[in-house]
Amino acid sequence: MKITDMCVTPIAISDPPIRNSIGIHAPYALRTIVELIDDHGVSGISEVPGDLDTTQALEEAREYVVGADPYHITRLLGVLARRFGGRGTTDRGVNPWDKRTYVHVASAVEVACLDLIGKTVGRPICDLLGGAVRTRIPFASYLFFKPEGAGGALGFGIDPKAVGWPAVRQRAAATPDDIVRQARAMVEAFGFQAHKLKGGVMEPDVEVCTVLALREAFGPGIPLRIDPNGVWSVETAIACGKRLTGVLEYYEDPVRGQEDMAKVGKVLGIPMATNMYTTSFEDIPRSIELGAESIILSDHHFWGGLRSSLDLAAVCRTFGRGLSMHSNSHLGISLMAMAHLAAAVPNLDFSLDTHYPWQSEEVVVGGPIEFDGGVVRVGNAPGLGVELDHEALAHLHDNYTSSGLTIRDDAAEMRKLDPKWEAKLTRW
Amino acid sequence: MKITDMCVTPIAISDPPIRNSIGIHAPYALRTIVELIDDHGVSGISEVPGDLDTTQALEEAREYVVGADPYHITRLLGVLARRFGGRGTTDRGVNPWDKRTYVHVASAVEVACLDLIGKTVGRPICDLLGGAVRTRIPFASYLFFKPEGAGGALGFGIDPKAVGWPAVRQRAAATPDDIVRQARAMVEAFGFQAHKLKGGVMEPDVEVCTVLALREAFGPGIPLRIDPNGVWSVETAIACGKRLTGVLEYYEDPVRGQEDMAKVGKVLGIPMATNMYTTSFEDIPRSIELGAESIILSDHHFWGGLRSSLDLAAVCRTFGRGLSMHSNSHLGISLMAMAHLAAAVPNLDFSLDTHYPWQSEEVVVGGPIEFDGGVVRVGNAPGLGVELDHEALAHLHDNYTSSGLTIRDDAAEMRKLDPKWEAKLTRW
Repeated sequence: MKITDMCVTPIAISDPPIRNSIGIHAPYALRTIVELIDDHGVSGISEVPGDLDTTQALEEAREYVVGADPYHITRLLGVLARRFGGRGTTDRGVNPWDKRTYVHVASAVEVACLDLIGKTVGRPICDLLGGAVRTRIPFASYLFFKPEGAGGALGFGIDPKAVGWPAVRQRAAATPDDIVRQARAMVEAFGFQAHKLKGGVMEPDVEVCTVLALREAFGPGIPLRIDPNGVWSVETAIACGKRLTGVLEYYEDPVRGQEDMAKVGKVLGIPMATNMYTTSFEDIPRSIELGAESIILSDHHFWGGLRSSLDLAAVCRTFGRGLSMHSNSHLGISLMAMAHLAAAVPNLDFSLDTHYPWQSEEVVVGGPIEFDGGVVRVGNAPGLGVELDHEALAHLHDNYTSSGLTIRDDAAEMRKLDPKWEAKLTRW
Repeated sequence: MKITDMCVTPIAISDPPIRNSIGIHAPYALRTIVELIDDHGVSGISEVPGDLDTTQALEEAREYVVGADPYHITRLLGVLARRFGGRGTTDRGVNPWDKRTYVHVASAVEVACLDLIGKTVGRPICDLLGGAVRTRIPFASYLFFKPEGAGGALGFGIDPKAVGWPAVRQRAAATPDDIVRQARAMVEAFGFQAHKLKGGVMEPDVEVCTVLALREAFGPGIPLRIDPNGVWSVETAIACGKRLTGVLEYYEDPVRGQEDMAKVGKVLGIPMATNMYTTSFEDIPRSIELGAESIILSDHHFWGGLRSSLDLAAVCRTFGRGLSMHSNSHLGISLMAMAHLAAAVPNLDFSLDTHYPWQSEEVVVGGPIEFDGGVVRVGNAPGLGVELDHEALAHLHDNYTSSGLTIRDDAAEMRKLDPKWEAKLTRW
């Protein structure tokens, strides 16, 4: 069994103008799709965040991947770590996503190898990771503030005939009521049983009131989270956290850095979660020493693949840390990789993040993956359980070419709305 | 793919009267062999330390194992953990081996499942663990003091026609020169490139002089270790450690408990290793907090299987701890499971322990596994790469029945030589 070909295809997928602490999403989110073909003509696929560096690195990785045995993944990842380790690491913890080259390359190669193996032996990927301990994977809604009238200024398309969630998805959201409406529409469409608010965007008081409005609307049985992406000061985070104690399931990255996360957690005594400050195995000893976080939001794109994410899960079990999953804008390949990992991890304690409802396109055969009661089902179909739609892939690659985008720069997009806007490490 | 049958066979294998801190080996070491058969008639095998409790627990485990899909191992081990967790844990850290029921049951079931999967898909077990990063697995000699004239009193057989290592294996060893002779015979027969002395048996000065004699005999390029199994006081361990600084590759369990290990390590500044005090994931946080050991001697029989041992390897990587492997008296099934694990673990820093040269019987087809230059080769044969010799199994099971042994009790054996002998927690 030998990999004989590797296709790397950057794509751009339509994305709404949703806000975060470092700006606003561009009209397209970038992803890169990898397809590996073996000497029996079987193919394995994967999807990763797709800036130019990742795509180029994957092209460079081809010389190591083609000719490799997909079972020999540890050795292959070791070669890739030596080739790409240290590249792309400049602003970890500043952006709420990770730009290390190696972890994305590793994730892309490993998931596609596992898909290839699964399709060869007729087993779902979760079975290659020890088997499913659950087959219904719960996800949370991901609620975003959106500016008024962004359609014109930023070049986002609007479908005037949309109804239901697709209609709500287009609407502005600036108030607690708007976010509650967003959440209700998501629940109606997807059945989510937990809600996460992307914070760090409005005045902290508005965001606290939004969480309280969600509690009022959905009741105490529905877990709530807020993620200000590190732009609150320790004082603000403590003041807001006091108002949200007993309301939040966990408090995600309100402040910047492991030290400040530990300070806030100690004062409030509520679970602190991160996908920004403990994002690699190198960060863990200090996190444990400080007691910086009680929950790690893993992401197989950022932790170097599914097996490496199982390693993280083992570390979390060993040190009594909770585990859930972070998300960026993504399509069904990433969604199913997340779902298979979630199926196999014994200690998955929370419903997972996903941007998936914000996407309106797909690259897998049969269109969007279905959510039922907020849940994605992992079945017995081989590999990831999805097939690449090559026609859709070509279309989304054309989008990439015509979009002119090569990196994600939410601040640059934001300045199209407000030329004086600047990202701040600590805003409030 | 479904497990349709599970055969649990306790066996007794001839074992020489080798000494340790808690007594002496009985004429037979007990192992339990597990064979799983699936609905396609494929079989998977495993071997674990075999006292009565383990064998009985494996019999009780049958109701969960038969009917299970061997790929669904995490779920199955979860069921077994709930069934057997907490059983057999009374004297952890006192004996130099582990008596927790669950870890042995889990290891037996998991390795046999992986062997079954490997044989089904035509892949070696290491490929199911991410693939081999090395195929030549280095082992160390394991050198033991032995009493004079034990043959008669303890009922050990002697073969007067033996030559080479089998002849030396029968001889008493009480002095540094005897141990050097033992090491030379092992090097001649197996090619080992590292030596480990089982200590905690003679006066500490004799043991220190033995290590120094090994250094003198083999030179500084051959790593040396000593393992007093925790019966030295902190003062003795420090005094001996000072004489051995610069000579030892690592210092294994000279004293009892994580706290004392940390104390000794801090004074000496040499690598401390354990298979007695950090023997489960529950022990790790305190080990890290104290800096108790710099090297964990893993053992898939004690850590609940091969995948769980990979979890341990991930924890060791994360916290900068070294990793090697502990051994008890064992046959070729355990040896090959160790070798496949060692092939797949990226961070394996030392040659592995093995009692294998002390054994003279085998339960796998083709007889003893070959060592070449101290190395066991992991090839591409499916599963573990060995097949059960059912005739040998029946013979070794007869040994078990006629031996009358049901537990390992090295102290009781020792009292046959010296009725007043008592194990001591701290002897020197």
